[in-house]
Amino acid sequence: MGFNIGILISGQGSNMLNIIEACQANKLISDVNLVVSNNPDAVGIKKAEKKGIKTATILQSNFLKKKDFEDAINFELKKEKINLVCLAGFMTILSEAFIKKWKNKIINIHPSLLPSFKGLNAQSQAFRYGVKYTGCSVHYVDKEIDSGKIIDQEVVKISEKDTIESITRKILMKEHILYINALKQLEEIYIDGQDKK
Amino acid sequence: MGFNIGILISGQGSNMLNIIEACQANKLISDVNLVVSNNPDAVGIKKAEKKGIKTATILQSNFLKKKDFEDAINFELKKEKINLVCLAGFMTILSEAFIKKWKNKIINIHPSLLPSFKGLNAQSQAFRYGVKYTGCSVHYVDKEIDSGKIIDQEVVKISEKDTIESITRKILMKEHILYINALKQLEEIYIDGQDKK
Repeated sequence: MGFNIGILISGQGSNMLNIIEACQANKLISDVNLVVSNNPDAVGIKKAEKKGIKTATILQSNFLKKKDFEDAINFELKKEKINLVCLAGFMTILSEAFIKKWKNKIINIHPSLLPSFKGLNAQSQAFRYGVKYTGCSVHYVDKEIDSGKIIDQEVVKISEKDTIESITRKILMKEHILYINALKQLEEIYIDGQDKK
Repeated sequence: MGFNIGILISGQGSNMLNIIEACQANKLISDVNLVVSNNPDAVGIKKAEKKGIKTATILQSNFLKKKDFEDAINFELKKEKINLVCLAGFMTILSEAFIKKWKNKIINIHPSLLPSFKGLNAQSQAFRYGVKYTGCSVHYVDKEIDSGKIIDQEVVKISEKDTIESITRKILMKEHILYINALKQLEEIYIDGQDKK
């Protein structure tokens, strides 16, 4: 058995959809059991529902404290017996307390070859810096932003003809390949761990 | 006509030898007219001499002030009509004043995919961080360390079997390809510039 995956999104959910489809096509042995959005307008939620995935929209603005907002997310994840949280364009920085609860069970995809170009707009950061190669990284989430242990990476070459838009597109295509490959690797580690129990 | 290249080294001079050989084999239209070492034991100096290249060893310890040491290097470079300075394992940080004199005419090779892993032991830094891809970068030298505009880069994949030693070897092999390619690109820009005069 693979993971019960919970995916946190804020927008389009293109990586989310990719993971759902990989699970439903048995490219992964895990299942996506829940998608949580923190944005009422996240298009990804509808995409998830169309695939028959349970969803929840939890808005930080409905809570007085960030802790309460995070507790609400945590409650939903626990309810669905989630044991791996995948961030996929989730545009809120999670607190150290939340991350500690999900230590080594929460991963993220970032559109750069980390440790270069952490934070927002990594594709533009790379383009403006003038690097000849960028890419994407799947990494464990720890308390520092985009600094957790790297699980896997993919490279994208930047040619003279590229624009920020073309690079962003190319990286996103690689993200889709990378996130599935990274999940496969984690499934293998997870199954190994279960075998040894 | 290409550049009159001056190469600054401190050790083995493997990139230096590679550039000399590319020039002598007419893979580049430039010539290496001078190799300067700041280390009396730099093996590279003998390699350069064997190739018939003029050399100078200039020790910082022979000067009271860093400025005087750099003036001595500058004097040698000017004497040989150098118009492009290539750093190749030159283990001294050049002053802002020196770099200003050689603005856009001094380049360096660094064993990482900049801006990741600046400074010393970039290969080990990358290995310890756990990145899946590293590489090397040829860049203009500016006043910040390893931060100048990137001219070109090459990627090296890190697999599970790799060690710091194997990665260092792989990067060095890519460095040899990269430095020549970067010089070719600069030659083209330089020739274009001369044509327009």
